Amino acid sequence: MATIVVPKHFSIQEDAETIRKACEGWGTDEKAIIAVLGHRNAVQRKQIRQAYEDLYQEDLIKRLEKELSGDFERAVYRWILDPADRDAVLANVELRKSSDEHPVLVEISCTRSPEELLCIRRAYHARYKRSLEEEVSDKTKGETRQLLVGLVTAFRYDGDEVNTKLAKSEAEELHEAIKDKKFNHEDVIKILTTRSKMQLQATFNCYREAQGSSIAKNLPTDAKEEYVATLRVAIRCLKDSKKYFEKVLRNSLKRLGTDEDAITRVIVTRAEKDLKDIKEVYQKRNSMPLEEAVDNCTSGDYKDMLLSLLGNEL
Amino acid sequence: MATIVVPKHFSIQEDAETIRKACEGWGTDEKAIIAVLGHRNAVQRKQIRQAYEDLYQEDLIKRLEKELSGDFERAVYRWILDPADRDAVLANVELRKSSDEHPVLVEISCTRSPEELLCIRRAYHARYKRSLEEEVSDKTKGETRQLLVGLVTAFRYDGDEVNTKLAKSEAEELHEAIKDKKFNHEDVIKILTTRSKMQLQATFNCYREAQGSSIAKNLPTDAKEEYVATLRVAIRCLKDSKKYFEKVLRNSLKRLGTDEDAITRVIVTRAEKDLKDIKEVYQKRNSMPLEEAVDNCTSGDYKDMLLSLLGNEL
Repeated sequence: MATIVVPKHFSIQEDAETIRKACEGWGTDEKAIIAVLGHRNAVQRKQIRQAYEDLYQEDLIKRLEKELSGDFERAVYRWILDPADRDAVLANVELRKSSDEHPVLVEISCTRSPEELLCIRRAYHARYKRSLEEEVSDKTKGETRQLLVGLVTAFRYDGDEVNTKLAKSEAEELHEAIKDKKFNHEDVIKILTTRSKMQLQATFNCYREAQGSSIAKNLPTDAKEEYVATLRVAIRCLKDSKKYFEKVLRNSLKRLGTDEDAITRVIVTRAEKDLKDIKEVYQKRNSMPLEEAVDNCTSGDYKDMLLSLLGNEL
Repeated sequence: MATIVVPKHFSIQEDAETIRKACEGWGTDEKAIIAVLGHRNAVQRKQIRQAYEDLYQEDLIKRLEKELSGDFERAVYRWILDPADRDAVLANVELRKSSDEHPVLVEISCTRSPEELLCIRRAYHARYKRSLEEEVSDKTKGETRQLLVGLVTAFRYDGDEVNTKLAKSEAEELHEAIKDKKFNHEDVIKILTTRSKMQLQATFNCYREAQGSSIAKNLPTDAKEEYVATLRVAIRCLKDSKKYFEKVLRNSLKRLGTDEDAITRVIVTRAEKDLKDIKEVYQKRNSMPLEEAVDNCTSGDYKDMLLSLLGNEL
């Protein structure tokens, strides 16, 4: 379930005017901007952008980029974008990093629904004049390329049907591959990139039952290879995306070395989806509400924005 | 341009009634069925199916399957389906063949537009409760699997922009790979499965300019491997789909050994798209109108249906 709180009564036109006022004159009224944007859903934010452009012949995003700064600016920028367009931006930012690992790309391709992933690929075309898989192919190579391209191009079947026999045999196939350290076997890639999520979850359960421990834990942690790292993230995202997101937040919310990018990404992308559930997983795992951790590790307008998205009442 | 001729005035309701009448009593009035269905576009055919179901509480497709037979039945069945659903059926039929080559699958993935291919994948889910790439992965292996999965999962950029420098360097890469007989090099697969069609056409032109002959002709014809055969079909479809379809028709329209399946497939899938252009290519290449060749090689209601789709006036 989503966390953001949208008031019962408001007007898109007034929202645009409020934001305009907040941007005019000396300084910027960040609180007013949070009070509006932090409490509107994707469709409403799109309407506000349109209303703002109609009223003032100015692109709201460009104006906010001028007015805001730092982590707060980035959070607002990420939040105001249409979800598919935002994911296209996140994927592109990730692919421009020099690292050979691209965990955010794996996260996007494995935690979004099949239809959402298609929309992201469409948004990628519109924004970057090339395809997402083209970019991935250009930036990676070998087995990692094969796995990543398979993940971003997948359009997994989304139904509930599970083939139990297949789950058992593929759990065994995965076990054999891991035992022989053939993580890059073509059938490992095939299983992870083409099976439906329900089917994969059944397969991972069979694996755990047969081997006594989870598949992600059976991958070597000392392997420095980007391929194994990519495989691990994919398995964790496909297995239980809420647990995966909880772990990203837990690793990012540290007083020393807070990872603002990761916190922003998870909160912004999940606030309209399942952040309520992720909050519950977080509370259970850390014996502390997620809001408290965010409150401890962030500050200023950035903190206020995150807390709004986490469901703070108006 | 399309070939089918749709009359200016007609009523969907009356169409459904006409078909019903044609199916009732002794025998079937095939001519009446062709006069209606052979002259309605995809949207109209869908409406006729719906109107028929509303009027007679009977699935029109099932009724026609009972009434018709042979090549004619198959042509009507293919034609009446929604284009994306039809391609899903064609892909599935192809994947159930025992052969290791799947030229029809390559044809579907390389000659449809990127958005059309997404619709086909969606139709595949709905009809077969699994993904198209899952089926392809299960039925193939090794390098052929890698190429085929890449082709069916591609969502190529559809714009006109061409990077000339890239076209030159990739033409050279392809040449090196062919010279060294490394047809399955990962970069060959990458180029063919991720670049936009405009980009690939520029690359193939650069190849021809530099090497003096086309890339498809430089692939060894004696190679019995399914991989090279798959690669050749992909290159021909991506290079010039109209020429490709002309060749399929030319090879199928033989007095001895007519390939009705291929003729039906090309005429049915292109009649609302570019069959007029394919007809022109055919006429130039064979000094004979396509209609004449079809008239010579087919007969009966099947022939009448094909000629209707080829643009016979009512």
